[in-house]
Amino acid sequence: MKINEIGEFGLIGRIAADFKSLIPQGWEGIGDDCAVIPWNEGKSLVVTTDLLVENVHFLREQITPYQLGYKSLAVNLSDIAAMGAKPVATFLSIGLPSETVEVEWCDAFFEGYRSFGVPLLGGDTTSSPEGIVINITVLGMAENDHIKRRRDARPGDLIAVTGPLGDSAGGLQAILNNIPRDADIKELIKRHHQPRPHLAEGEWLGTREEVHAMMDVSDGVASDLLHILRASGLGAAIRTDAVPTSPLLRKIAGREGWNAAELALTGGEDYVLLLTVDPARINDLQKGFEARFGHPLHVIGVCGSGKPEITYSGTDSHFTGFEHF
Amino acid sequence: MKINEIGEFGLIGRIAADFKSLIPQGWEGIGDDCAVIPWNEGKSLVVTTDLLVENVHFLREQITPYQLGYKSLAVNLSDIAAMGAKPVATFLSIGLPSETVEVEWCDAFFEGYRSFGVPLLGGDTTSSPEGIVINITVLGMAENDHIKRRRDARPGDLIAVTGPLGDSAGGLQAILNNIPRDADIKELIKRHHQPRPHLAEGEWLGTREEVHAMMDVSDGVASDLLHILRASGLGAAIRTDAVPTSPLLRKIAGREGWNAAELALTGGEDYVLLLTVDPARINDLQKGFEARFGHPLHVIGVCGSGKPEITYSGTDSHFTGFEHF
Repeated sequence: MKINEIGEFGLIGRIAADFKSLIPQGWEGIGDDCAVIPWNEGKSLVVTTDLLVENVHFLREQITPYQLGYKSLAVNLSDIAAMGAKPVATFLSIGLPSETVEVEWCDAFFEGYRSFGVPLLGGDTTSSPEGIVINITVLGMAENDHIKRRRDARPGDLIAVTGPLGDSAGGLQAILNNIPRDADIKELIKRHHQPRPHLAEGEWLGTREEVHAMMDVSDGVASDLLHILRASGLGAAIRTDAVPTSPLLRKIAGREGWNAAELALTGGEDYVLLLTVDPARINDLQKGFEARFGHPLHVIGVCGSGKPEITYSGTDSHFTGFEHF
Repeated sequence: MKINEIGEFGLIGRIAADFKSLIPQGWEGIGDDCAVIPWNEGKSLVVTTDLLVENVHFLREQITPYQLGYKSLAVNLSDIAAMGAKPVATFLSIGLPSETVEVEWCDAFFEGYRSFGVPLLGGDTTSSPEGIVINITVLGMAENDHIKRRRDARPGDLIAVTGPLGDSAGGLQAILNNIPRDADIKELIKRHHQPRPHLAEGEWLGTREEVHAMMDVSDGVASDLLHILRASGLGAAIRTDAVPTSPLLRKIAGREGWNAAELALTGGEDYVLLLTVDPARINDLQKGFEARFGHPLHVIGVCGSGKPEITYSGTDSHFTGFEHF
């Protein structure tokens, strides 16, 4: 049977079921942004790992080595933020085609990697016959009662995101369509290559009881929200006109004839946080969030009981996200 | 500058120096088989990660998916054993060319992976345009005073290994030379594809105070011992006729005209443990080891003061190990 017949998440489901019996009581494995391992004095360790493969996740001639080092770590830090945790250690494995990658490339890669100030504690380096291969594992720490999971959304919860969506997908589209690089296009492409993981936001949201479920937006809201809905046994309604986009994306979309709302809902790699919030306390949370971070927390929809499906108002399209197979 | 001008260990050295200032007091980063992070009540977490790339670390048509799942985890578990620790959790990233790898292949891979009974707590699956890519991260736990490091060898320490060497290199040679596969050759190739990580041995040796430094043999004793010598500021003398080889390797080497001693010293991937021991207590340790494990602990040399170099008696060859660039 071909892997794409069962899909990425089908494969993960098979694996998770096989290993369930081996996992100690109180530990949490596959099924959230991070695994959770009890630590000491009311704290837990959270762990995430991500594999990036050249020509699947990035194009070497499009991304600078600094940006690649930055982004490779950013996508992992975003998973730590999504749990309400703080990153404490990273491990990097890198496979390099030594014919085509030079030491100066590596130095710039590590400069980007270092820009978050999170320690690198170990790793592996090897040659790779074809493309560059990067795997990063990050360990984070959180108070047990600050950890946010996908499964904790409740009926009536409002659905919110910590920043605008679609910039990264717009940047990718600009690259793939070879759009001439004026200052606006350059900035949009930079947002694809250097997404900011919402680390401070995630840690702060972890401290707020009214935040129930949380994850990061890596495959696109339309796809990622389904993970929360399936884990929580809920449905959801999204108001597409409430999904935030940046002025830059709207400007370029208008010029290029793109559908900004569709990019925002289905485009991946924005690495903002997606969360569900007790509706009675949303105003307080939004006020506190904006006061602290200087940018708004956007409500885009609501959770309801029902099948894990999303209904969209403001459009009749059925949006889906990105699977790797 | 080309990467192979500075080599794998040159690259690692550059990276380690850059990140040193970010590492918290009491944590240990790059430079041993695992990183060490203080846990609670006198315990530490140890962490290792390894990247395996098709056509660099394995040939898909030569290794069964079961064996690949087994070996990918085995090489990481060996690093945990080398610290005197016990594995508690694993994380797997796998990149698969979905055109040529089927679901049944994955099922067999995970059967091999599961054979150690260590939980898989998370990971990442993605497509890969060319070859299979596997990255595994393993977390282990150990009492702080059981952890063995490369830097703790002392002048006069005896150098020992926990099992015979060269089988894995012999198996690889049989594959590469296309030697007809009689039962003996099949068994030797199996030892290359399914090396046994010395987990129980490592954990037990961790409890023994007379064991000073320890690591696993992944690149070949001639290369790996140099890591202990450099970290400890010592030289060493190895008696090549004391380096243990299996009856099977000696039999096949005799028949094929191979130099078994050279395979044993320079061949990698045996994943036995290499340790240095207080000479006053070696007899006791050997007796206890053999009583517990049913196979001997072999003394192969001695540490001395001086430059981090190895002198060999019984041969005038200068042996070196394997670097990935």
